[in-house]
Amino acid sequence: MEEKSLLLEHERLDDLQNGYKLIQNPKQFCFGIDAVLLSWFANVKPGEKVLDMGTGTGIVPVLLKARYPKGHFTGLEIQEESADVARRSVQYNHLEKDITITTGDIKEAASIYGGSFFDVVTTNPPYMVGNHGLTGENRAKIIARHETLCSLEDIISQAAKVLKPRGRFYMVHRPFRLAEILSVMVKYGIEPKRMRLVHPYVDKEPNLVLIEGMRGGKSRITVEKPLIVYEKPGVYTREVLDIYGQEKKK
Amino acid sequence: MEEKSLLLEHERLDDLQNGYKLIQNPKQFCFGIDAVLLSWFANVKPGEKVLDMGTGTGIVPVLLKARYPKGHFTGLEIQEESADVARRSVQYNHLEKDITITTGDIKEAASIYGGSFFDVVTTNPPYMVGNHGLTGENRAKIIARHETLCSLEDIISQAAKVLKPRGRFYMVHRPFRLAEILSVMVKYGIEPKRMRLVHPYVDKEPNLVLIEGMRGGKSRITVEKPLIVYEKPGVYTREVLDIYGQEKKK
Repeated sequence: MEEKSLLLEHERLDDLQNGYKLIQNPKQFCFGIDAVLLSWFANVKPGEKVLDMGTGTGIVPVLLKARYPKGHFTGLEIQEESADVARRSVQYNHLEKDITITTGDIKEAASIYGGSFFDVVTTNPPYMVGNHGLTGENRAKIIARHETLCSLEDIISQAAKVLKPRGRFYMVHRPFRLAEILSVMVKYGIEPKRMRLVHPYVDKEPNLVLIEGMRGGKSRITVEKPLIVYEKPGVYTREVLDIYGQEKKK
Repeated sequence: MEEKSLLLEHERLDDLQNGYKLIQNPKQFCFGIDAVLLSWFANVKPGEKVLDMGTGTGIVPVLLKARYPKGHFTGLEIQEESADVARRSVQYNHLEKDITITTGDIKEAASIYGGSFFDVVTTNPPYMVGNHGLTGENRAKIIARHETLCSLEDIISQAAKVLKPRGRFYMVHRPFRLAEILSVMVKYGIEPKRMRLVHPYVDKEPNLVLIEGMRGGKSRITVEKPLIVYEKPGVYTREVLDIYGQEKKK
């Protein structure tokens, strides 16, 4: 019954099918395929220290922990309410030794953690520029989706500071910002090394992009084959089933 | 018989299947699918002035002229031997009024033509960085494939000068240089607006990328669906057959 006591009103416990559960409030921002693909795209070696910038309710650290049990994970989240949900999920799963949730501002990451501290940075940042397309949603959702509190440049410049030399940066974002993403990464010395576009169907434009960069890497990027999500409406492709299944097996 | 007299030893006349023929020397650099895709990807409006930077034997202006009979085309080529072949192809096709071939250096494009002169710039530049992977090929092939005489940055910076404000830039290149391409375009104010990756097969990495930029455009790129070349070995996809067929119909 300890578990139940960790849940607040309106919250539910979602089974991640990987041995862990995540607390979410359906009225707030809930994780999507973006977070699943990001944690699948990222690689973490045993003993490495990983920072997830803008961790929300902690989905990425929990998914990564399931795939890479020997990593050390930190989630940075500016909204205390989300950070609190994340901490309770960590507690629920008895992961306090492996996942730390910090309440704090991405723009201050380097002063919070110090420079050259992490081996890996992951981020599933707000996709929308500034307040573009802002509607009447609640504050937590707005902050998760729009660059109201930090910009792409803030995230990348801070990632460049907290990453060790040759540390890896993994991000999921929208393709319409690709030129900006790659040029800002180059500007701050996180060289784009690997990219995969995610298409809902094989004959459709991509709606997500997965990117790996390396602090101080040399200029050469591998563009991978397209990742196709659906065979047909409601039916995932073999590869996406494997991605979800991989989480399940651990 | 006038035609034959335009051919030098070792040269042949290739039927472009669009009403025009191109003089090529099989011992030198011959055009490939890159040039065909570039001229298909580019858009030219009636009356627009188009510069093809590093035109070689003039394939891109001739293909574009077939698709856009009301455009005015200039090819800039540093190698006099290639420029001479291009001029003879223009002459053979009676296109002297519509296609001009200049012998000159891309690095001096702005001083040759003046600033803000062209509506459109196309380029199928050397793909290889510096002298990387240089083998015992002949000089003309080396210059066409390697950045011995000009770099990506030279091309983009000169394109930014010779293009009118809101003028369009079209380039075919290799995906491994994508981060550099997009960031150098942003640096010189040619905003990447449209991109299409070309994959030999649907489940393979792309080996070409087509990019459209706009001088002074706003930061937002459309990444299009993948362009797949082969259904199976030796069999083009419907779309690539259409691309070649489109040339044929004109």
